[in-house]
Amino acid sequence: MKNIFVIGVGLIGGSFALDIKKQNSDCIIYGIDKNEGHLDEAIKLGIVDKKSSIQDIEKADLVIIAIPVDATLEVLPGVLDKVSDKAIVFDVGSTKEDICLKVKNHPKRRNFLAAHPIAGTEYSGPSAAIYGLYKNKTNIICEVEETAFKLQEKALKLFSELGMRIRYMNPKAHDKHIAYVSHLSHISSFMLGKTVIEKEKNERDIFDMAGSGFESTVRLAKSSPAMWTPIFKQNKTNVIETLEEYINNLKHFKQLMETGDFEAVYNEMETTNHIKDILNGIQ
Amino acid sequence: MKNIFVIGVGLIGGSFALDIKKQNSDCIIYGIDKNEGHLDEAIKLGIVDKKSSIQDIEKADLVIIAIPVDATLEVLPGVLDKVSDKAIVFDVGSTKEDICLKVKNHPKRRNFLAAHPIAGTEYSGPSAAIYGLYKNKTNIICEVEETAFKLQEKALKLFSELGMRIRYMNPKAHDKHIAYVSHLSHISSFMLGKTVIEKEKNERDIFDMAGSGFESTVRLAKSSPAMWTPIFKQNKTNVIETLEEYINNLKHFKQLMETGDFEAVYNEMETTNHIKDILNGIQ
Repeated sequence: MKNIFVIGVGLIGGSFALDIKKQNSDCIIYGIDKNEGHLDEAIKLGIVDKKSSIQDIEKADLVIIAIPVDATLEVLPGVLDKVSDKAIVFDVGSTKEDICLKVKNHPKRRNFLAAHPIAGTEYSGPSAAIYGLYKNKTNIICEVEETAFKLQEKALKLFSELGMRIRYMNPKAHDKHIAYVSHLSHISSFMLGKTVIEKEKNERDIFDMAGSGFESTVRLAKSSPAMWTPIFKQNKTNVIETLEEYINNLKHFKQLMETGDFEAVYNEMETTNHIKDILNGIQ
Repeated sequence: MKNIFVIGVGLIGGSFALDIKKQNSDCIIYGIDKNEGHLDEAIKLGIVDKKSSIQDIEKADLVIIAIPVDATLEVLPGVLDKVSDKAIVFDVGSTKEDICLKVKNHPKRRNFLAAHPIAGTEYSGPSAAIYGLYKNKTNIICEVEETAFKLQEKALKLFSELGMRIRYMNPKAHDKHIAYVSHLSHISSFMLGKTVIEKEKNERDIFDMAGSGFESTVRLAKSSPAMWTPIFKQNKTNVIETLEEYINNLKHFKQLMETGDFEAVYNEMETTNHIKDILNGIQ
């Protein structure tokens, strides 16, 4: 693959660019971004070789769409219109149902692979891009059967070179489960940050009392609202369901405290403690 | 200080023992623990030099009480009864009001320093003890004026040798603010873990989808229920207040999603984003 187009040169797209260039030094990375400053930064940082635009995309061998999920819905059909038959296009979005639906009947559907690499940090923009971001990370691929065999193969070879493990799911199941193991965490973190900031806004000293536990639980509240708002919008039904269950569990815990049933409080925590084993599986 | 008694040879007490021994190689660390297995383990790991009991505590120069906060309430008065006039006793509990109240009128009140080192990990027991746990960490000291000058001095010298920064607060303010920046984080994490485990109990594969964000937000759900239940019990009123505010913020966020007001959803996150600056201050 010679001509690689990266649409969105931030954390996710930029990190793909860095690793791909490292693997194939003779490829050319073309950057497309509606934020001109980000493009300049990406070139300065050596993340992309050239600025480009959607017009040039007909020469692409690979197109990576790494922009917020609402923008992906808008951009993908036009990209597919323009790419050659041999090009593989994949997205990286945290929601998969809407995007698969959007191009369901597109004549070039077989050039597209719906992907969700579970990787990232709470930072964003080109300066957040790093080498090795995808090593040992899970990449969820949806509706693989809708992608042409040869193009599936190309993409999987790339993911494998970057050290990713592949999981296949249907888009509906992806969106439902990812709401629990990712989207809910972000809301829980944002609202925790909000609760504490609101309370302590006049007492900034108080954050001296915060330790690594607080840091860990509110880390995701640093995430980009521009990226997360459209995710919550597209996955609205599932996310609302997880929020409802989370709120009910919190209310139940509060009630146990109010009635002074600390044996039950203990049991609530004890039962959840085996998350240790589950988390050991993640790392 | 020659004879150091550590009551509770787990993560917190054990880590104090390790650093103190490193600083003063000629001191003797006596371990007291109602869990005989933990004591054996602590000796095997070189955390304590000798097993001991409360009866021997009259020869102590320093006593560190590092047990769950309910047990501290029971143990501290008896320890003060027995220590010599020159001994300094400090606790490390995450709640300060009840303990200060408990020994308010104790004839040896001036031998006690109420402390809360903001340090730890989600692990527990002697094997969790590590060197350097307290370096660059905050230690909150309450009612310092109730401790004898010379003994304050001894304790502060020790904390300084271990690399800690000191903050002075009154017990009421400590318990109120720590509910926000620590206790609430633990409940949020436990309930997040519970919500996901309940949903996914028949689909363990799903945890393959979880990334570092999930890991970060549920890390505290690995914490010890035996340690945390009495903290929530002692700080019940404050913790219930934080939970109420947290639940209200989550409900509001859910409502914004239900009504489709994603501009407001964006603003909720945007406003909380400056937690970045606050967290930079922590580290």
